[in-house]
Amino acid sequence: MKAFDFLNQTSEITIPMGKTMVLDKGLGLNAVDDLIATAGDAITFVKFGWGTSAVMDRNLVMAKTARYAAAGLIPYPGGTLLEAALANDQYDAFLDEAKALGFKGIEVSDGSTTVAADIRHDLIIKAREAGFFVISEVGKKNPDLDHELTPAERVAIINADLAAGSHYVILEAREAGKNIGIYDNNGNIKVDELDLLAENGIDKLIFEAPLKAQQVALILKYGPQVNMGNIATEDAISLATLRRGLRGDTLGKIKSAADLAH
Amino acid sequence: MKAFDFLNQTSEITIPMGKTMVLDKGLGLNAVDDLIATAGDAITFVKFGWGTSAVMDRNLVMAKTARYAAAGLIPYPGGTLLEAALANDQYDAFLDEAKALGFKGIEVSDGSTTVAADIRHDLIIKAREAGFFVISEVGKKNPDLDHELTPAERVAIINADLAAGSHYVILEAREAGKNIGIYDNNGNIKVDELDLLAENGIDKLIFEAPLKAQQVALILKYGPQVNMGNIATEDAISLATLRRGLRGDTLGKIKSAADLAH
Amino acid sequence: MKAFDFLNQTSEITIPMGKTMVLDKGLGLNAVDDLIATAGDAITFVKFGWGTSAVMDRNLVMAKTARYAAAGLIPYPGGTLLEAALANDQYDAFLDEAKALGFKGIEVSDGSTTVAADIRHDLIIKAREAGFFVISEVGKKNPDLDHELTPAERVAIINADLAAGSHYVILEAREAGKNIGIYDNNGNIKVDELDLLAENGIDKLIFEAPLKAQQVALILKYGPQVNMGNIATEDAISLATLRRGLRGDTLGKIKSAADLAH
Repeated sequence: MKAFDFLNQTSEITIPMGKTMVLDKGLGLNAVDDLIATAGDAITFVKFGWGTSAVMDRNLVMAKTARYAAAGLIPYPGGTLLEAALANDQYDAFLDEAKALGFKGIEVSDGSTTVAADIRHDLIIKAREAGFFVISEVGKKNPDLDHELTPAERVAIINADLAAGSHYVILEAREAGKNIGIYDNNGNIKVDELDLLAENGIDKLIFEAPLKAQQVALILKYGPQVNMGNIATEDAISLATLRRGLRGDTLGKIKSAADLAH
Repeated sequence: MKAFDFLNQTSEITIPMGKTMVLDKGLGLNAVDDLIATAGDAITFVKFGWGTSAVMDRNLVMAKTARYAAAGLIPYPGGTLLEAALANDQYDAFLDEAKALGFKGIEVSDGSTTVAADIRHDLIIKAREAGFFVISEVGKKNPDLDHELTPAERVAIINADLAAGSHYVILEAREAGKNIGIYDNNGNIKVDELDLLAENGIDKLIFEAPLKAQQVALILKYGPQVNMGNIATEDAISLATLRRGLRGDTLGKIKSAADLAH
Repeated sequence: MKAFDFLNQTSEITIPMGKTMVLDKGLGLNAVDDLIATAGDAITFVKFGWGTSAVMDRNLVMAKTARYAAAGLIPYPGGTLLEAALANDQYDAFLDEAKALGFKGIEVSDGSTTVAADIRHDLIIKAREAGFFVISEVGKKNPDLDHELTPAERVAIINADLAAGSHYVILEAREAGKNIGIYDNNGNIKVDELDLLAENGIDKLIFEAPLKAQQVALILKYGPQVNMGNIATEDAISLATLRRGLRGDTLGKIKSAADLAH
């Protein structure tokens, strides 16, 4: 049971919470235990950011994935690592090693490299066939390249990925959340672009939203069921309070399920 | 005994250190143990920020308050949680639950909601009667609303709160410390407003000062006995060094007790 | 063995990694254990920042240095603490206490105080004679004073320090990395100044580079063998990925040993 449980009862019953992906930049086991104990039930996915798992000891990575999975979370390696493997024509070895390490998900991305649409399609299929939960990412890590992607192109990729079998499509914003994807130089949402991206609904989208102002804006716009990613591990609890209207920024401002149905 | 104890002896003897409140945004028990072991004797209050305690397991919150209290620190839930309870007319339940969870202090605030002066007065009295250490907070979390509060109004609230029984009054600056209270858009102190607020002395005031530059400015102005809050847990040790002139920013610049008496 | 080891094999064999110094601002033992387990083999030096060790319990500091040293890392107290001791004419006591606490290195600096060249020379000699690994630091913590140092003067100090026996010379950038040393107000590298400083090679230099953009720029310019310091402990793993081309910023851009030989 939660502390101060009487405060949670209304919103928890009426509005399901969105999925949260946190960004594990290299936590040790003590910190992993702390994260699971404090915020485990508010987290769905744990991304081992970019290539961080490849500079850590195998046994340590296996211990981490085991703890996350035992708590019901889905650990997965960052898409950049997949891209590095792909550049060496090692995708099969990548999937095998990911499975051996205890990862439950795979992120398919082309943020740092170029991947043809048909190859991307095959990557998603293959990861699904190997039994992974699949999240594909749309966007470029280089802002100049990212700006070349029109909203219509992003929508097309989203739709193609979902058709290929991605469980969710995640919208790139990196760790910093500025001048990329739906965010301008100051990290504010470009609302027109967001609206275009979300025209088919947001259920299958995960918005990378590393900054608190982004999390607040998305919750106020879509309600607490919006899916968000690249949340710093130390902000997981804060995000849970924002979703429930238990921080000043959203207190008394969370839309009800009835509001959201309109 | 401290390491390099010979370096500490002069200042520790002559100038008492101010109170420090750290902001616990959702630490797990491993991190709590680390915080107490490293900086416990430099901390007086631990605020479980805003509604963070209400999204964590009851048993975990109780374990945390027990460890803080055993180390002589005063844990208390954020004022936003009190405001959420008050909005539901659940103040009594809030105090009961806070006591059951092992909190030793209560923060009375109206940062996110409107609370009439007479009700605020009663909240302070009731928390005192329930045996809590009481800190009341002055300021609004919304910058536009916060700017409407004149220094004279803030002083009036401070005086009323202390008269009602608050042990300390804390000046709001949020987690970010910019464009709020005594801080401008860049987080610099607005000296004129600070001087007005401090006209009756600073002994009973706690300045939220999340940024290092703010901590340095307050220590250089008032000496190490200035009370500060919303200190990030990872900065607790840094603040202790700033107070003692053991970081470049204050090395050789700490006022002596004699200076401060003038 | 590393996870995804097949991805590491090329670069690890051909290019030795530079030294990394992380900034320990007051970690507790749980966090120290996490740091060693995750990134220990990617770290050479651990600086206990400025005077942080002097506000912690002696036994705790001794436990920390013991764990770092057992993992093959070189712990050392921040230069500001040496300067504080020097101001009290307590250098011998400082070295004795550092040794008793288990520190393996000493940082000789004048970032916050003025130290004559001949005294600086003697400090380095004495620390070497006492059996310490010696890193001397060039630069002032106050930006105005720091700007008065010309590149030529910095080079002269570097050369004098190495002649006196410093194992490495570290270039000051503080914890924030802006408007100081080789960095402008935005934290970008002033390339002309950097080139002057590096004219005799970079093997014996450690660049303080707290910001990711600085780490990326130095790696792209000099290759992964560039030595960097003041790395936040939570960024140690990220830096290891940047050095190996396993983060988007450096993926496919790391110079080969052959490139670097030109």
